[in-house]
This record gives sequence, C-alpha cells and structure tokens, in this order.
Amino acid sequence: MKINQGFLNLKDRYLFSLVAQKVGEYRAQNPGKEVISLGIGDVTLPLAPVVVEAMQKAVAEMGRAETFRGYGEEQGYAFLRQAVCSYYARKGVELDASEVFIGDGAKSDLGNILDIFDQENTVLIQDPVYPAYVAANIMAGRRIHFLDGSVHNSFLPLPHRDLRADIVYLCSPNNPTGAVYTKEQLKIWVDWALAHDAVILFDSAYEAFIQDGELPTSIYQIDGAKRCAIEFCSLSKTAGFTGVRCGYTVVPHELIQGGVSLNELWLRRQSTKFNGVSYVTQRGAEAAFTPEGLEQNRTSILYYLENARLIAGALTELGIWFTGGSNAPYIWLQCPKDLSSWDFFTFLLDSCGIVGTPGVGFGRNGEGFFRFTAFASREDVRRALDRLRAMPL
Amino acid sequence: MKINQGFLNLKDRYLFSLVAQKVGEYRAQNPGKEVISLGIGDVTLPLAPVVVEAMQKAVAEMGRAETFRGYGEEQGYAFLRQAVCSYYARKGVELDASEVFIGDGAKSDLGNILDIFDQENTVLIQDPVYPAYVAANIMAGRRIHFLDGSVHNSFLPLPHRDLRADIVYLCSPNNPTGAVYTKEQLKIWVDWALAHDAVILFDSAYEAFIQDGELPTSIYQIDGAKRCAIEFCSLSKTAGFTGVRCGYTVVPHELIQGGVSLNELWLRRQSTKFNGVSYVTQRGAEAAFTPEGLEQNRTSILYYLENARLIAGALTELGIWFTGGSNAPYIWLQCPKDLSSWDFFTFLLDSCGIVGTPGVGFGRNGEGFFRFTAFASREDVRRALDRLRAMPL
Repeated sequence: MKINQGFLNLKDRYLFSLVAQKVGEYRAQNPGKEVISLGIGDVTLPLAPVVVEAMQKAVAEMGRAETFRGYGEEQGYAFLRQAVCSYYARKGVELDASEVFIGDGAKSDLGNILDIFDQENTVLIQDPVYPAYVAANIMAGRRIHFLDGSVHNSFLPLPHRDLRADIVYLCSPNNPTGAVYTKEQLKIWVDWALAHDAVILFDSAYEAFIQDGELPTSIYQIDGAKRCAIEFCSLSKTAGFTGVRCGYTVVPHELIQGGVSLNELWLRRQSTKFNGVSYVTQRGAEAAFTPEGLEQNRTSILYYLENARLIAGALTELGIWFTGGSNAPYIWLQCPKDLSSWDFFTFLLDSCGIVGTPGVGFGRNGEGFFRFTAFASREDVRRALDRLRAMPL
Repeated sequence: MKINQGFLNLKDRYLFSLVAQKVGEYRAQNPGKEVISLGIGDVTLPLAPVVVEAMQKAVAEMGRAETFRGYGEEQGYAFLRQAVCSYYARKGVELDASEVFIGDGAKSDLGNILDIFDQENTVLIQDPVYPAYVAANIMAGRRIHFLDGSVHNSFLPLPHRDLRADIVYLCSPNNPTGAVYTKEQLKIWVDWALAHDAVILFDSAYEAFIQDGELPTSIYQIDGAKRCAIEFCSLSKTAGFTGVRCGYTVVPHELIQGGVSLNELWLRRQSTKFNGVSYVTQRGAEAAFTPEGLEQNRTSILYYLENARLIAGALTELGIWFTGGSNAPYIWLQCPKDLSSWDFFTFLLDSCGIVGTPGVGFGRNGEGFFRFTAFASREDVRRALDRLRAMPL
C-alpha cells in the first residue's frame, strides 16, 4: 500500500503551533509577565441568547420519542436553507434552497470541494493567504500558481489578461489582510473567470463584518457570478460558532462546466462522504438568522470591530502602515524598522508581552508583515495598545 | 476547468431514493393503506437522559462568556478521547488518546480517509456492501476489486492466498447482512494484510450490538491489527446520534507504511480540511460513555435487538433463509420463490404494505436477497410480521 506522496510535500510545522511553542517558551522564561494575545483567530464572545434558547429546545426535542430526529435532509434542513435564502434576498441575491448546502464549516467545504475537480486543473492562490487552501491542494498533488499581494496592490491582486488558471481562491474580507474587494474589482475577477472557464472559490467567511454599504457582501452581487463561482460561508465568526460548527456553501444551478452541473456533483459528493450537521446545531443556526439573532450577533461583531478600530488608531499614531480593520476582524501591518516577521514577533513578545502572527507564515509575500486580530477582550486590547505605544522602537 | 470524470462513472440512482420513489408511488395509488417500513436505516428511539442533560449543560456554557468554548483540540477534546480509551480498555484493547480522532461520523471519515492513500492503490470491497464505500472510490477513480459474499460463505468472505489488494474494507457486524466475523476469521484477514502490506479499513459502527461474548468487538482484539488496521466507530446507532453526528476513528501509532505514520497523515489531513466536532456534541458523547449512558443506550440497543429476534423468528417459521439479526440490527434474507430483489420488494409492498430494501442495491451478489432492519417501533414490527406470516406465497 502506498501513501499519498503529496503529504510529503507539506511544510513541516504549522504556523500556529510554532507560534504557540514560542509563546510557551517565553512564558516559561518569564513566569511573572502577562502575555496578551492580539493573534487569537477564535471568537471570544458567547453565543447569542436566541441561539442558546433554540439549541436548548432542540436538545429537549431529541430526548423525546415524539420529537426525536435522526438523519436530516441531505443538504440540510429546509428551515435553515430557507433562512439562508432570506439572508441572501436581503442582500439582493435570489437563491433557491436547492442551491444551498448546509455543512459543518467553511474549512471542511473549502477542502472537500476539491473532490469534484479533476486533478489536472491549475489552482490560483494568493500570497499571502490562509494556509489551509495551499495545504489542501499540495495534499492533492495539484499545480498551484501564486498571485502576488503587496502594498502596491493593497493586497487585492487582480488578474492580468494573460493569467490562466482553472480554479481561483478569493477570500474577501480577507484573512490574514482584512482587505476587501470592491464591486468593480470582483467584476474583473468574474469576467476573467467567465472568459477562461475558470471557477472562483469565494471564501465569504467574514462578510458580516462589512460596514461600508458600497462593498459587496456576496460574490453573487456581481453579474455573471452564478455562472462561475461557489461561495463558502460560515457562522463561525458571524455568530460565534467556532465550537458549534456550521456553515453553508452555495452552488448555483447556473454553474455548469463541461455540460455538468456542479450543484449535482457537490450533492453527490456530500451524499456519499458526509452525513449532515447536527439537528441541534441547525436550529441554533436558524435562530442566528432571525431578526433577534442577527441583532444579537451584530452586537458581538461591532464589539470586535471596535477593537479593530482601536488597534488601527494606535498603528496610525505610530506611523505603521496597515490595511484591514474597518470591514474585517484582521489588521495586516508592515513591520516597523524593516524587521522581518519573526524578528518583529520576537521583539513584540520580549518588549511588550504581546503575541501576534508573523505574516511570513501566510506566504513569502507576508515577509516583513504581521497580523493582529480583533477577537481579544476590550480590556486586553486597551492594555496591549498601551504597551504598543510605549514599545522601544 | 475540468470536472472530476470519476463522478460520471457513478450509478444514476441512489438505492434509497429509488426505494423512496416507489413507496411514494404506492402511497399515491393506495391512499387508505398503511405502509410499515422494515427498511429504516435510522434509529427511532430518543437520546439517553444523561446525554440530553450533558448537552443542555454544554449549551448553557456556550451562552456565558466565562464558560464559552471556541475551537476545540484538533483531535477532539481530551475528555472524550479518554472516554473512548476507557471504553476500549474494557474490551481489552489499550489505546493512547493520541490514537483517537473524534469526527462527525463514520461516513465522513470512511470517505475522507482515502485522502491519505495514493490513488494507484487497489481497493478490495465486498459484494454485497454498504454503497458509500464503492461510490467514494469510484469518485476517486480508484481500481476496485470485489470479493464475493454468498450463502456459501455465510456472507463472510475470507482472503485466498493469491488475493492481492492494498486497501480492504471490512464491516463487522455487517451492513447490510448483519453477519459477524469470528476472532479466527478476523485473524485470517489481519495475517493476510500484514503479509501483503495492506491496510484494513474496519467499519465497526455496529459493534455495540454484539451480544455473543465470543465475537470480537474491535479489530484490535486481534494480534497484529494495530500494525495494519484503522477502525471507524460511530455513536449513530450505538447512542442514537444519527442526527447529532459523532464518531471516532482509531489510527494506531504502530500503523506505519513506507516509513510514514498513518496517524500523522490523518492528523495532518484533519487539521487542514476539518475543524472539529461541536463542543455540545462532544459533551453528549462523553455522557454516552459513562456507566449510566452505556446502560441507557444498552436499553435502546436491546430494544432493537428484540425487534430483530422477532423478525428472525417469523422468517424461521416461514422457512426463509437469512443471516444476521442476533448481533446486528440487520437481517439479510433470501427472497422466497426465487424472486428477484425488486420483484420481492414490489410483492411485499403490494401484498403486505411492507417496505424493505432490495439486496441487489448493495451489489450484484445481493440479487435474490433482501434487507430488513430492526429500527422500527415494536408495534410496527409486530404488525408487519403478522402481515408477513399471512403473505400469499
């Protein structure tokens, strides 16, 4: 039996476990010093009250024979898919419930969607980028081309006319940079994909953080996108579901390649290799989409965005270049004094007791950059920023 | 962009949706007649009280900032992995918690495990078999060899000396046949796998139904199995979790192929393409493994097994050959009067208003056979068997 050789091409260490190791070493050497993390990639605020209530009700139903639920509908319960369609309708996007697939999170679906594509396809991924896209494709032995993000294009690269690829990953608002494509920029991508028979895998995990009414909150707000894009959404950051696990993937019926409906392929893949999301979780997700749920989750989102605004303010005072932070929970800053990512990591930790994430961990174009996140508590953010303003640079 | 051509090699219709369609047609043509299903592949009894209690407590924790949980440990919470290890210890199998991976069910893990194997491996699958194994491999474009199950080998095929394959699927107790391998028979498989550097994918989803103390309840009760087998377990039928979604996959550290640890490969795969199981679900699963939880779930399992015993009794009275039903919730019977699987399906439905599953849907060796399941209510089983005893054959 031969193992998949693709795994041998993966980098040895996970970015985040390397960070955790260095923080552990610092703590061991500095037992009295408090470490504040501005690198948390996880939510910290609890579930909304209506979500808790809905999940309690669902758990109780599961304990009684008359209301017990076993296997659910293959694409997820209609009550939740309808709620997702209503959410899209409010954004001006009309979807049919059969175009929505409830899953256990964007990470799973972004990884597993590769099953429906031939291995020979070329994949276009940005640099810097969320590492899982790259790892999943290396595991699958696929050809990856990288598209450069930089200060020059505000980390919002666009296709040039000769660019060729079969599958392209776009994440907007972006993790790690917090950068957000405008409608005009997404139209360039959609037109390019249509012209080249390419498929856009649009990671929309942070769409709920967008405050600027001019910015697109779904790829399908762009004409033609239904013919070339799959959109991946998650309740993880939107509703605090990182420990609950629920997302939804939209595969429009108009998305046809080689005469085959990608919606039917994804349905077949999921019917064979997945068995649905917990009923309790789906009722919680349904509650998150009610007016009360949206309002309660908005409060949490605004809390994180205020953290981001404070961080952005401090960086501005310090004259440090950055992007993100106004429509996303991520801030991508240029390391001061031309420090490398890891040197700045060490400097921040040693001189301020602050933890962030070295940009080079997201790709070579991240070298010299750094990521802060907005998920810490308000008090931790304030205290970290006080230390940052006082850092010995 | 090219789609994965493997999908075009899949059969057109799902067995179970074809069954549902025919039942729908019957109901439409026979509005007054009650249909009783002995083909349900889903549990019907509610969650155990201690499980409900644990899940309610966990939901409440998620609603408070001080006890809220975000992303969990990558392989699943240690509290649950330890509970799984204790469960195995009671079976005489010693595992380390790092060998246990909590997942959202055996179906997902059985499908996704293929990621770690090279595409050139030959896969050995039995016929008849649970259809998802076949579909997942056809999607992946892998070479499949089928191993014949029949009345002659009691649907418990064994390897002959010249048999070659890299990956073999074994499911015991078996879906659809309910047949269970003895320790001696599993030893033959383990010895064969070790001799041929093959990996056994052991689907142990129904191990909790085994009543006969001589029968193995884990592949690891066989010497050498840790060096050649991955075991997939599920709480779906064991604890009624079909709508809650939790399972566990064991990849022993001793399982090394080509100098590479499969445990490390699976960890890498899951870290990249999966984000864990709901905290609420994991607390429910932990409760299922407590003495009270095991006892409460045992009550449900015995209820289903009594259904199976009654079905078996009726078949014996009718002189119909069958296997299964004493250590599994499935009964695999030979269609009377040499009827084909679908002819017997139609006959049963038309003359008795009973729904079962045509054996041919599980593979060509299922032609002339039929599957009953034990998950219906006791009253439905009794009424169905009364009709069965009176059927005009």
